[in-house]
Amino acid sequence: MEFVENSIGRLVPTEIDGRKLKPFKGAFAFKPKKRRSAFALEFAAREKLLPSIKDAIEAVGFEDGMTISFHHHLREGDYVLNMVLDIIAKMGFKDITLAASSLFNSQSEHLIKYIKEGVITAIEGGSLRGKLGAYVTTKNPLKKPVFVRSHGDRVRAIKTGEVKIDVAFIAAPTADEYGNCNGVEGKSACGPLTYSHVDAHYADNTVVITDNLVPYPATPITISQEYVDYVVKVDSIGDPAKIVSESTVITKDPVSLLIAKRAMKLIESSGLLKDGFTFQAGAGGISLAVTKYIHDYIKKENIVGNFGMGGTTKYLVKMLEDGVMRKILTVQAFDLYCIKSLKEDYRHTEISTSLYANIFSKGCAVNKLDIVVLGATEVDTKFNVNVNTHSDGLLLHPTGGHQDTAAGAKLTIITAPLKRGRIPVIVEDVTTVTTPGETVDAVVTERGIAINPRRNDLLEAAKRKKLPVKTIEELKNEAYKICGKPNPPKTTEEIIGLIEYRDGTIIDVVRQVKKSTSGVF
Amino acid sequence: MEFVENSIGRLVPTEIDGRKLKPFKGAFAFKPKKRRSAFALEFAAREKLLPSIKDAIEAVGFEDGMTISFHHHLREGDYVLNMVLDIIAKMGFKDITLAASSLFNSQSEHLIKYIKEGVITAIEGGSLRGKLGAYVTTKNPLKKPVFVRSHGDRVRAIKTGEVKIDVAFIAAPTADEYGNCNGVEGKSACGPLTYSHVDAHYADNTVVITDNLVPYPATPITISQEYVDYVVKVDSIGDPAKIVSESTVITKDPVSLLIAKRAMKLIESSGLLKDGFTFQAGAGGISLAVTKYIHDYIKKENIVGNFGMGGTTKYLVKMLEDGVMRKILTVQAFDLYCIKSLKEDYRHTEISTSLYANIFSKGCAVNKLDIVVLGATEVDTKFNVNVNTHSDGLLLHPTGGHQDTAAGAKLTIITAPLKRGRIPVIVEDVTTVTTPGETVDAVVTERGIAINPRRNDLLEAAKRKKLPVKTIEELKNEAYKICGKPNPPKTTEEIIGLIEYRDGTIIDVVRQVKKSTSGVF
Repeated sequence: MEFVENSIGRLVPTEIDGRKLKPFKGAFAFKPKKRRSAFALEFAAREKLLPSIKDAIEAVGFEDGMTISFHHHLREGDYVLNMVLDIIAKMGFKDITLAASSLFNSQSEHLIKYIKEGVITAIEGGSLRGKLGAYVTTKNPLKKPVFVRSHGDRVRAIKTGEVKIDVAFIAAPTADEYGNCNGVEGKSACGPLTYSHVDAHYADNTVVITDNLVPYPATPITISQEYVDYVVKVDSIGDPAKIVSESTVITKDPVSLLIAKRAMKLIESSGLLKDGFTFQAGAGGISLAVTKYIHDYIKKENIVGNFGMGGTTKYLVKMLEDGVMRKILTVQAFDLYCIKSLKEDYRHTEISTSLYANIFSKGCAVNKLDIVVLGATEVDTKFNVNVNTHSDGLLLHPTGGHQDTAAGAKLTIITAPLKRGRIPVIVEDVTTVTTPGETVDAVVTERGIAINPRRNDLLEAAKRKKLPVKTIEELKNEAYKICGKPNPPKTTEEIIGLIEYRDGTIIDVVRQVKKSTSGVF
Repeated sequence: MEFVENSIGRLVPTEIDGRKLKPFKGAFAFKPKKRRSAFALEFAAREKLLPSIKDAIEAVGFEDGMTISFHHHLREGDYVLNMVLDIIAKMGFKDITLAASSLFNSQSEHLIKYIKEGVITAIEGGSLRGKLGAYVTTKNPLKKPVFVRSHGDRVRAIKTGEVKIDVAFIAAPTADEYGNCNGVEGKSACGPLTYSHVDAHYADNTVVITDNLVPYPATPITISQEYVDYVVKVDSIGDPAKIVSESTVITKDPVSLLIAKRAMKLIESSGLLKDGFTFQAGAGGISLAVTKYIHDYIKKENIVGNFGMGGTTKYLVKMLEDGVMRKILTVQAFDLYCIKSLKEDYRHTEISTSLYANIFSKGCAVNKLDIVVLGATEVDTKFNVNVNTHSDGLLLHPTGGHQDTAAGAKLTIITAPLKRGRIPVIVEDVTTVTTPGETVDAVVTERGIAINPRRNDLLEAAKRKKLPVKTIEELKNEAYKICGKPNPPKTTEEIIGLIEYRDGTIIDVVRQVKKSTSGVF
């Protein structure tokens, strides 16, 4: 055995059992080789708090061609994405890849401008909405197609290294100067910070931007100092009042309410609504109505659910408060009522998008869902669902948790009207496949319920309850009879988007649109 | 661009921008190549709940030569380590490496038996205590030296792969059937589960063993289902009443109280006790007395601290409750009072050992400490501290957070009597170096205070306050005058233990002891 004297004069071996050993060189002397995981000593003495976003961008050694990320918990009220892009653009950086968890209308004009200027040249895991989606679909201005990913798939892609984030920017409603942060305290409280969890864990650099800097330690700790390089204080990170959108209130439209009532009847017939049941409903008007109907029903029947999951709205929180639901797991808050509950009610837990839906783990929470109620822009006769594009091919909506929950839940119900205006929703082939038909159990419309032939048990149950069951072809034919057969989108050969399935495979492509015919843009 | 038809009949490209793309093959069809991160689909349908520990050991494909881990939050009250070892031994497995976060006296007899039988042949990150420590130090029965690591160093070693855990066993006071678990609920509540955090994240297999199986989801979620392979329900995982040991009450010994009072005076003189100060005190009798003195002092002076960190006892919790401390960060609960507070008080936060002290991160919490008060078995004239061995060379104590907090805090005070019985504590050279002198600011004894010459500022401050300052050599000489110069341990050339510093370097070795002379064993 060979020995060497270490810096305090003790003789220590250089190797034991085949393992090379390093002699002690002083309490603060050892410098590890560069590795993904940073070395605390570099951060022990160093000040993480910087006076401006520009300083942080300089401090991380920002370069042309980098990939940057943001979370979207502040939704239409977010200020941080625009603020950071303005500074990056002003500093003259180009060729940036944007890997935000989602993008919103309030960012569209900024993004279009910076795409035109060559500041942004690629979008990863994009959730293109509205004007930005229309712009990208018609102009094909990016150097490679947009990868469209579900919440779970985004985590998977970052975890596997398919998306490599150089700098994660985290809008934090509360943070301390060492980078611990949360979303439940502060004037801009947005609830969870779960979309940023994976960014912080895997990005090379993480910059926390807060408008509520509190003394160390900021608790609860949603994002840990272990993953944060710099902290910047700004006047305001956003306007949480704009988290709520019109889509997050119960529909008043009679057709939509009819669809919701039928969905409720189908859920009842499934036999899943018993003590300990679990469910998720999206934040669309029909889904919220279903949530309310479930609440009323189980209260009457003395049934208590084990958990509701969301995108959480006040309708789900009220189930908790009313004692008909034991727990809530929240990935995203859709209103201020939810944010308050998340902070104050110990039965209400924030979960990361990884725990929620990451397929590269030992089990995600969507696997524990009994029932999920989801929307669609189109459903086809193979039960494939499109939530990304309109019938004219414009890429206007994100995937969200659609693929994830549909695959995980025991009962996946799509609620949709037969048609919207003169455009059929139930079609022969969806324009774009977001969610494969094999994970969809039933489609509920105002004209009847179509049940996937794979679910004969559900079909029999629905028939026993005398629900208005039709085949999916019958629904499609009715839609075509009213609206006529839809024209396929007028596209070029250029691919502007790739729809990834939650496991990283490519389920469909989106082509450049020559001309919008749906009249949305 | 090449295209291929995926399983739902859509043509998708095989490569974009140099990135190979996989076509969708069906919602549940894709099987990734084996990688460290498990694949949720395998866990979607599969039952994680198994009827017995034996079933779980079979299910993970247990083999001879594997490395297993445990946490020690239940301390002397833990049943799980012995239970699992009994089953592994009965099943005939040999050559196991034990990588527990710590080991206790209640496990000594079991462990000695299984070392003798060849079931356990190595201990990684060992915290040998009492009989087991004496046995290993005198008999050298293991096939390689024990690596002795601090709390932070254990995380570092697991994270870097130096310690590769095949199966992590987690004693969970509350868990659900999918593996989410916490330590604050249930009849065996032990408070945090923070030592197991890194095990679950990096082990190939994680088995949760609980005596309180609750409906999914068990919240709060300390260890996430994402990292858990199997769950087993047993009658009892331990006796939390045995978490409290004699060492976690304030000393009544007059010498110790004198040392505590002097330490308090030194802290006062340092000027660090101002609004927003932070501190950690160990759970030893002197440290607890110092905690109490700080409490009384800052209450009188209207000072409020930002956080206290622990190993948390009721004395720290009382500071929170009394409004003289804003937050508590807890890695380990030392009494039931702390466990109750952790569950009920939102200002009291459980932190992982990684956040606490992992040096391979962007900053650990020990870096934010103003003051830490620690114990010692020996201190030498270079201010090096030994907490691992006794003067006769027996390896009887774990490192805990000693190295971590000493390096992190602005003021590191070692409290120790000049001698214990006829054995000097202040010595020329410590038997074993645990914590290097460069991270120690002062040694407080009943005979005087020695201040590290590196801290002239502190020396001046102490003199201004007329504290009984002496040189460390003077203290050593007084000790030797009373006790005589100590004999070095009678050892062989064999190395039975390696003392790792928190950065993974080797700071000292422990050699096999021919004969115990301190009379402990």
